[in-house]
Amino acid sequence: MTKHAMPRRTFIRNTALTGAGASMLSAANVSRAFGNVRQDKIRIGMIGVGLRGQDHLSLLVAREDVTVVAICDPDTKVAIPRSRKIIQDHYKGQTKVAEYTNGNHDYLNLLKRDDIDAVVIATPWNWHIPQAIAAMKAGITPAVEVCGASDIDSCWNIVDTSEQTGIQVFMLENVCYRRDVMAVLNMVRQGLFGEILHLEGGYEHDLRNVKFNDGVHFYGHGVEFGEKGISEAHWRTLHSVHRNADLYPTHGLGPVANMININRGNRLLSLVSMACKSRSLHEYIVKNGGKDHPNAQVRFKLGDVITTLIKTANGETIELTLNTNTPRPYSLGFRVQGTRGLWMDLNDSLYIEGISQKEDAWESDKAYLEKYDHPLWKRYAADTEGAGHGGMDWFVENAFIESLKRKAPFPLDVYDLATWYSITPLSEASLQEGGAVQYIPDFTRGTWIDRKPIFALDDQY
Amino acid sequence: MTKHAMPRRTFIRNTALTGAGASMLSAANVSRAFGNVRQDKIRIGMIGVGLRGQDHLSLLVAREDVTVVAICDPDTKVAIPRSRKIIQDHYKGQTKVAEYTNGNHDYLNLLKRDDIDAVVIATPWNWHIPQAIAAMKAGITPAVEVCGASDIDSCWNIVDTSEQTGIQVFMLENVCYRRDVMAVLNMVRQGLFGEILHLEGGYEHDLRNVKFNDGVHFYGHGVEFGEKGISEAHWRTLHSVHRNADLYPTHGLGPVANMININRGNRLLSLVSMACKSRSLHEYIVKNGGKDHPNAQVRFKLGDVITTLIKTANGETIELTLNTNTPRPYSLGFRVQGTRGLWMDLNDSLYIEGISQKEDAWESDKAYLEKYDHPLWKRYAADTEGAGHGGMDWFVENAFIESLKRKAPFPLDVYDLATWYSITPLSEASLQEGGAVQYIPDFTRGTWIDRKPIFALDDQY
Repeated sequence: MTKHAMPRRTFIRNTALTGAGASMLSAANVSRAFGNVRQDKIRIGMIGVGLRGQDHLSLLVAREDVTVVAICDPDTKVAIPRSRKIIQDHYKGQTKVAEYTNGNHDYLNLLKRDDIDAVVIATPWNWHIPQAIAAMKAGITPAVEVCGASDIDSCWNIVDTSEQTGIQVFMLENVCYRRDVMAVLNMVRQGLFGEILHLEGGYEHDLRNVKFNDGVHFYGHGVEFGEKGISEAHWRTLHSVHRNADLYPTHGLGPVANMININRGNRLLSLVSMACKSRSLHEYIVKNGGKDHPNAQVRFKLGDVITTLIKTANGETIELTLNTNTPRPYSLGFRVQGTRGLWMDLNDSLYIEGISQKEDAWESDKAYLEKYDHPLWKRYAADTEGAGHGGMDWFVENAFIESLKRKAPFPLDVYDLATWYSITPLSEASLQEGGAVQYIPDFTRGTWIDRKPIFALDDQY
Repeated sequence: MTKHAMPRRTFIRNTALTGAGASMLSAANVSRAFGNVRQDKIRIGMIGVGLRGQDHLSLLVAREDVTVVAICDPDTKVAIPRSRKIIQDHYKGQTKVAEYTNGNHDYLNLLKRDDIDAVVIATPWNWHIPQAIAAMKAGITPAVEVCGASDIDSCWNIVDTSEQTGIQVFMLENVCYRRDVMAVLNMVRQGLFGEILHLEGGYEHDLRNVKFNDGVHFYGHGVEFGEKGISEAHWRTLHSVHRNADLYPTHGLGPVANMININRGNRLLSLVSMACKSRSLHEYIVKNGGKDHPNAQVRFKLGDVITTLIKTANGETIELTLNTNTPRPYSLGFRVQGTRGLWMDLNDSLYIEGISQKEDAWESDKAYLEKYDHPLWKRYAADTEGAGHGGMDWFVENAFIESLKRKAPFPLDVYDLATWYSITPLSEASLQEGGAVQYIPDFTRGTWIDRKPIFALDDQY
């Protein structure tokens, strides 16, 4: 235990439980809870250092304002050795990083340390919320990777715990920081599209060679999953076997939610989902493993294309698509449409009435994306070189660390996480009920009415 | 009355009412009803010769196998004089064409003629079904323009009448004959996309200057509609005032319905719709007519973007979009996706696993559309030059006339019409109920199970 850590953490907890009334986690409360002392170095624990965790680890060890204190992963064969190498390459042995590798619950021991300010959680989906809750209960701030929730209760649990402990949760939705998405956000805020009416997004990505491998290679080379698969095939594929739902809603939803101030003057009200039949995973197994392979008997519940329509309090519609079973080019399928025009990323084009030269004709979005490049990207683009997913990983990590250092409200917070995660069980319920309307909980408990937008308002973080 | 006409028409009616049991209009029954005598010249009456009717008229008077016998329209100021000119340009006064111009119900007098085989109905939407029913009751075959129904009962009424009279109805859905759409249909049938999973289509077309004009020009120049508007602004805009629904579903639905054999081994089962707020028509009026213009007080019910999801009996999903109020480039937004790949028309691209050279990357659809050009287009492309909507109008007209001449079952028939039209009142009901699931009637009364696909199977029509 260092001298520095404990008082601050104790202070946060006590303030949250008394000063903030143990019920609401408003921006004002967060600010009060943190006090005004800016911290220069954030001490991080990593829960989950598989491929995605290693992305985070690489970014964090490279930052001068971060010390990675500990890592945790039960996979001592691949994940831990690779992470050690990342750490060694940067820290050159000057900082000792503790390892927690004793099974799936050793993260609880990591959370007992008192020299950790925050944890980055990049584990299989069903662990995200329990681990984040355990972190908060230990006085540690969690940053949580994307996924969808197993159920609505767990979304409420993470909100409840955050409000009760007064500890924030950072939602690591990296696509919110994609360069074109942020430029379009900038255009939306400057009114170029007029009043926003309709938005689309999704996750359309052929994941067949992620869902299946040979137990040796991370990607493809076989049709194994579950016990015989490794990496994501070890756990992620089971969701395709057992669940028919938009399993991965946040990459499509997060970016457009920011554009219409969801949970900050607006909220998601209701949704309906429809799924087509499930054919392509089975077809992949038969094609690559033969019809006699045991996995050819598996019946996958996940429809190959799942479409969800969401209605908001302010009257916009959002369409989300999940399409991860079929051969196709990668696309998040964004569309941002208002009373004056629209942008679509499939054809990298837009049309804005009165500005686009040719009437009713698409024009390339290139010049617009440059002109309206977000201040954050203008400032930091050079720093993001080599960072994952075209640089956006750098920004989401940076936002997390910078807001921690400033003790400021998180731009993507526990309400965003709960709301976006909740789309998975709600779409699942809708599909179970043949497309029936599902009401989306208001995880802000009504405070969305006066919560103000704070995401990427300037070039700070 | 000519000697040729009456016996055939009487025969058709009698056969239908006795031989076909007055209940089902199967392909076999139609063929029996018509007998085997091929007719060389089809005598047509035109009900509605506004702008769209004039498109049909121009195509019909140019055909050697058609005689236009009569036209009907209450608009003696513009529609009738323009149609007279079209007729005069082709017929050079050698064929006298009767005119029925005495108000909205003079079509009933046209239908009393006994020298008409068929009528083409291109009137305001609410007239389509009543006029088609009246035609059938008069022993005349109707071809009916696209739109959505006012209600489900009227869809049943046109089916009932067709079955009771034994007279077919041709659904004039021209986009079914669009060259790229037919090439993709060809590719679907040859299995290039594998098993079809998900389809999209719609009608995304900035119609603001169709919905509003100055009472003098057909398009724009003012913000009048209804009594003070002319052409489509005179009647079509009232649907935007009074109805929140996918008002115009068939251009998007028809082409993809053919690809998955709807009503012929498959059927539409259920739908849900969501609509965003209605802003853009009001904004257009204020911008172009000023906030004090009386129409600035009109509250439009039609949402600016309306999205409908449909589930089929065979497990495909179809997404339809209606977007006619906002500034944007024209697009029908087609997507055809199967287990092996997909085509989208927004980016004129496709991807087919094992065929596309570069993995997971879009490639231009150009070479494929040429390679799989439909036999009909290969044969008739030269004949379509100058025909409306890039030639597809020629094909839909040709299919109607050629199947009449052959006394053959219509490739787009009364069941297609009823099913496609029904999306409008069903989406309206879903929107009224906050997105609730609506069951789509089986207008084939169960016969879809063994009805065989007949649309564009070869290069005949």
